[in-house]
Amino acid sequence: MKPLGPIPSGYTAIDGVLAIAGRKATELVAEAGVTPLFVYSRDLLTARVAALRAAMPERLSIHYAVKANPYGPLLKHMLGLVDGFDIASGGELSIVRAAGVDPARVSFAGPGKRDAELEAAIAAGATLNLESEGEASRALAIAERVGVRPRLAIRVNPDFDLKGSGMKMGGGAKPFGIDAERVPALARKLLAAGADWQGFHIFAGSQALSADAIIETQGQTLALAARLAEETGVPLPKCNLGGGFGIPYFPGDEPVDIGAVGEALAERFADLPEVLRDTAFCIELGRYLVGEAGVYLATVVDRKESHGEIYLVTDGGLHHQLAASGNFGTVVRRNYPSAIATRFDAPVEEEASIVGCLCTPLDRLADKGGFPWADVGDIVAIFCAGAYGASASPAMFLGQGPAAEMLV
Amino acid sequence: MKPLGPIPSGYTAIDGVLAIAGRKATELVAEAGVTPLFVYSRDLLTARVAALRAAMPERLSIHYAVKANPYGPLLKHMLGLVDGFDIASGGELSIVRAAGVDPARVSFAGPGKRDAELEAAIAAGATLNLESEGEASRALAIAERVGVRPRLAIRVNPDFDLKGSGMKMGGGAKPFGIDAERVPALARKLLAAGADWQGFHIFAGSQALSADAIIETQGQTLALAARLAEETGVPLPKCNLGGGFGIPYFPGDEPVDIGAVGEALAERFADLPEVLRDTAFCIELGRYLVGEAGVYLATVVDRKESHGEIYLVTDGGLHHQLAASGNFGTVVRRNYPSAIATRFDAPVEEEASIVGCLCTPLDRLADKGGFPWADVGDIVAIFCAGAYGASASPAMFLGQGPAAEMLV
Repeated sequence: MKPLGPIPSGYTAIDGVLAIAGRKATELVAEAGVTPLFVYSRDLLTARVAALRAAMPERLSIHYAVKANPYGPLLKHMLGLVDGFDIASGGELSIVRAAGVDPARVSFAGPGKRDAELEAAIAAGATLNLESEGEASRALAIAERVGVRPRLAIRVNPDFDLKGSGMKMGGGAKPFGIDAERVPALARKLLAAGADWQGFHIFAGSQALSADAIIETQGQTLALAARLAEETGVPLPKCNLGGGFGIPYFPGDEPVDIGAVGEALAERFADLPEVLRDTAFCIELGRYLVGEAGVYLATVVDRKESHGEIYLVTDGGLHHQLAASGNFGTVVRRNYPSAIATRFDAPVEEEASIVGCLCTPLDRLADKGGFPWADVGDIVAIFCAGAYGASASPAMFLGQGPAAEMLV
Repeated sequence: MKPLGPIPSGYTAIDGVLAIAGRKATELVAEAGVTPLFVYSRDLLTARVAALRAAMPERLSIHYAVKANPYGPLLKHMLGLVDGFDIASGGELSIVRAAGVDPARVSFAGPGKRDAELEAAIAAGATLNLESEGEASRALAIAERVGVRPRLAIRVNPDFDLKGSGMKMGGGAKPFGIDAERVPALARKLLAAGADWQGFHIFAGSQALSADAIIETQGQTLALAARLAEETGVPLPKCNLGGGFGIPYFPGDEPVDIGAVGEALAERFADLPEVLRDTAFCIELGRYLVGEAGVYLATVVDRKESHGEIYLVTDGGLHHQLAASGNFGTVVRRNYPSAIATRFDAPVEEEASIVGCLCTPLDRLADKGGFPWADVGDIVAIFCAGAYGASASPAMFLGQGPAAEMLV
């Protein structure tokens, strides 16, 4: 039997059935009328942001990285919880505007911004995190043409990375941001051009679980921001410290100690250099805010045995859960937290693999896990499905189409 | 510099620009009005099927596996070239019917068929490749209810795999098909129930380049089909020998020697056991038929340097080319064939990485390859984009949306 990842807290059983936000999975499926179904919990979203605010210095703003989950009702809920939204495309700009987000609370990072995307963001009054000198020139020219004073920040490619992070976004040659040593010259150029200067965006990595690593990186980030602001010659108006807070997906993973991160940051905020004295700081988090608040539900359509192994074949699959299948930036496949939702408090009775309905061996959601006995009609749950699930999977593969989504 | 995969034959330069089906990539992009753009060549599709027919015994039917590329105009073109279509979902059934395919030429395999999908296929007269005893029972019950004599075949989980294949579909416990030793009993049950018996579907693996491995597997497949038909007690009406023919993606890959495969198969067809004497044989191929006939075109929106490395940032990315980015069932990332389409016959001038517009380090289409010098506005081409591209990638990731497609 292979271990399963840890089921996030906040999920209970009612009459033996997994409950999400106090409602049975079976009820939610009946209400949606269909599986596969993503369910996101308002309560867990709210609780997560509240816990984070309690741990972090008051001065620190919290931004939501829309790429993690752009589902409209979820964005509307986040609107009342966070201070800003970070987007990565013109498509996401449209999505956040449709959800009622004020573009003045939006910043736009991404290495391949097209002219039309730059224009839409500038015209709307969103902040652009510039990724290159070329993009800066295009943005200034477009702003001139449109007749809007552009809100411009510079995304810095830092000289360090976030240790232990799932994805490194700094510490060497990268397609993201501008190498630190070239930043002050560009910042001065933007100031001289009359841009509405928004400061720096410094993102060193994502999905780290070690508070020590995050604390170290935040220290380096603040030091880099101070140095670059000094060299630019003006106090820094804003600084996006990046994100990087991970969530436990796999056996043995432990949650980030946000208390320790918040304390260390508060100490640093109490002792900032002059050039950062009045800086508005924020962090941008996607996965950390929404990942554990989501569950993916699929129905078992076949129970079969092959050479002594049990397969629970579901109507879901990697077309909605690419990362859980181990096929998205993963070297060694490990099991996400998963369960039989309709037998949520039953003991482990057998070893089984939960597979999807796609005709490919890649489509495996849980490999040789320990589960209660389950059969056709049972519902399986894959946890940690709130981030990089529905929108980060090939929904049209094999003619399947997207899953339903629901905020409860 | 890292090597690039081999550019398939059939692509030339006109005035220095990549030509697809005799037309310049720049013209095609102008006609589509947008990048990213998938272009599929009618001529290359036709030539590929013709070469395959010439190499294979006349008795062998050729089926197209729709999952490789379900683009409507491409399906319509394939309609005039192949003998049958293999689908993997109710969604694909709708797609092939919309393209004008006669359901009598369609067979449906896939481990997680829902009742509604079984019903649609049975009512339409498509053949079901049954994946389990449970699915067989459901299919018989639905056929009875619908009042249609169902066309039923059994997908066999063979005891062998296709050596050197990119994806093994046999040789041990699998979610696909029914273990060989249980097949005769189920076949007899289907016959007794009055089903329109369609025989066996035996698929051992995909993406193999070695003719020897394919020949060996086809021999094992025929021997297994004969043994199972003997045990079933009736001559075998049909046998789908699976697919498995790969295409060269990576440096050093060589095309399959289809001449050798066809000769070996012809020899075996000349010496079949009694129970296979009148069997209708087919192979099902997806990637092999369409993969090399497609090119993905994206525009360079930024050229940037970071710590001495050159990045060509495009408006495309892994949201259309997940496999090319190395994130779909790949352990070690290698470069697909790629080129600067607008400088197609220019010499290599620098080392550069072609990246997508997504804000993730996973979004890399060519890593440190050798290319002519290119700048903003140039068009890049990723080859081998005809199969498992548009439909097998997370098109909605980061709010991007699908690419345009075009058959020329």
